[in-house]
Amino acid sequence: MDCCGKTIASRSRYAQLVPPTCYLPRGHTGKCDQYPYLKHLADIAPHLAKKIRRDATMTTGAAWASSDAGPNRILRWVILQGDEQLREFGINIESLSPIIQAKLRDKAASYEDCMGVARRLTWSAYGVPGAPRPPDHVRTPLEAEFGPIVSGSTVCLICRSPFDFDDYAKAKRGKAVIETAHAAPRRHDTANVGFAHRACNIAQGDKTLDEFYEWIRKILRNVEAGRGHP
Amino acid sequence: MDCCGKTIASRSRYAQLVPPTCYLPRGHTGKCDQYPYLKHLADIAPHLAKKIRRDATMTTGAAWASSDAGPNRILRWVILQGDEQLREFGINIESLSPIIQAKLRDKAASYEDCMGVARRLTWSAYGVPGAPRPPDHVRTPLEAEFGPIVSGSTVCLICRSPFDFDDYAKAKRGKAVIETAHAAPRRHDTANVGFAHRACNIAQGDKTLDEFYEWIRKILRNVEAGRGHP
Repeated sequence: MDCCGKTIASRSRYAQLVPPTCYLPRGHTGKCDQYPYLKHLADIAPHLAKKIRRDATMTTGAAWASSDAGPNRILRWVILQGDEQLREFGINIESLSPIIQAKLRDKAASYEDCMGVARRLTWSAYGVPGAPRPPDHVRTPLEAEFGPIVSGSTVCLICRSPFDFDDYAKAKRGKAVIETAHAAPRRHDTANVGFAHRACNIAQGDKTLDEFYEWIRKILRNVEAGRGHP
Repeated sequence: MDCCGKTIASRSRYAQLVPPTCYLPRGHTGKCDQYPYLKHLADIAPHLAKKIRRDATMTTGAAWASSDAGPNRILRWVILQGDEQLREFGINIESLSPIIQAKLRDKAASYEDCMGVARRLTWSAYGVPGAPRPPDHVRTPLEAEFGPIVSGSTVCLICRSPFDFDDYAKAKRGKAVIETAHAAPRRHDTANVGFAHRACNIAQGDKTLDEFYEWIRKILRNVEAGRGHP
């Protein structure tokens, strides 16, 4: 889609780094909007619209806030900056443990990739059984970019089993049942993201999907050969 | 083995609940010992001996200490006590979130089961390639209980691939590579424990091993049928 692309005024401290831009079609009427395709979901499933924005643009951060755990949730493109620039934002990357530094770097992605991920996840969400039909102004640009939105065409990225639109709102032991997942864990772009069951996402770990499938094939070969002693 | 079984004096606040007992043979000479079979490992691989004692007897606790996270590492048999009794030990179980309460209860096990798990894990450790040969006073009772100690007979409980004795000392991103695992996650007894790769243990999650294998079989069926759209 040919986008408006105009800069949107923002009070975020990070806007001086990468200002938010408008993703409405060029020559649109009315106000510029960074996430026009999320407006419909924001009305009917606000938690999901928020999740898509957050997962597309933010690092996951630590489970708890502490000086050695590093910043809790930060824009992925901010992490692309050099140590010097990060310090200006109050992030002293050198003071973090090597483990946390590596985790943060793993989550880095460009602004454009993050915007693409948000569109892709929105498109995926509408393909889940039970999802509402998107209005035309949402459907048309998403289908032009990613193909037809068909109910049931979105399955768990990892186990390939279907899940229901209601599952987006479900939690188990305090954790969302459906998460954003990556076919290759350290590549945050449209070709590489989807939704997955939390249990599947955890099982995949830091493997690529291909590595994961190869690994579980090997496990089953071992089990079927009767290796080990249980 | 017919054990001495005498109570061993302890300064632990929990000893009034279940006093530690001697696991040397009945009629032994010298001092009583709760973990005589761990003495050899304690000399040559102290981190592993400590790990076996800790995993056999303690809950995993939270990754961080906080009032809502609950007690960080506590003896598994203490959790079997009623709320009243726990309060006497400074653990106000009702003040913890239902999620943390459930996690703690999942880890509960009797003193006898925990002692059995420590023996079983010790036996398993000697069956890993690269493990030292246990001295006879260790080998004989362990083999009487669990069968011959053969180098290479211990594999990852979950993926059934071998790992090396050196792997017990290895860590990746700050986490031990080899963990204690359970074929059925909420049963902490000799028939049900073993060592596993951390990645395998995480992938198994709260499933039993049978459920886990069934689950990954289904994933591969979906993948091979070409379900989903990656």
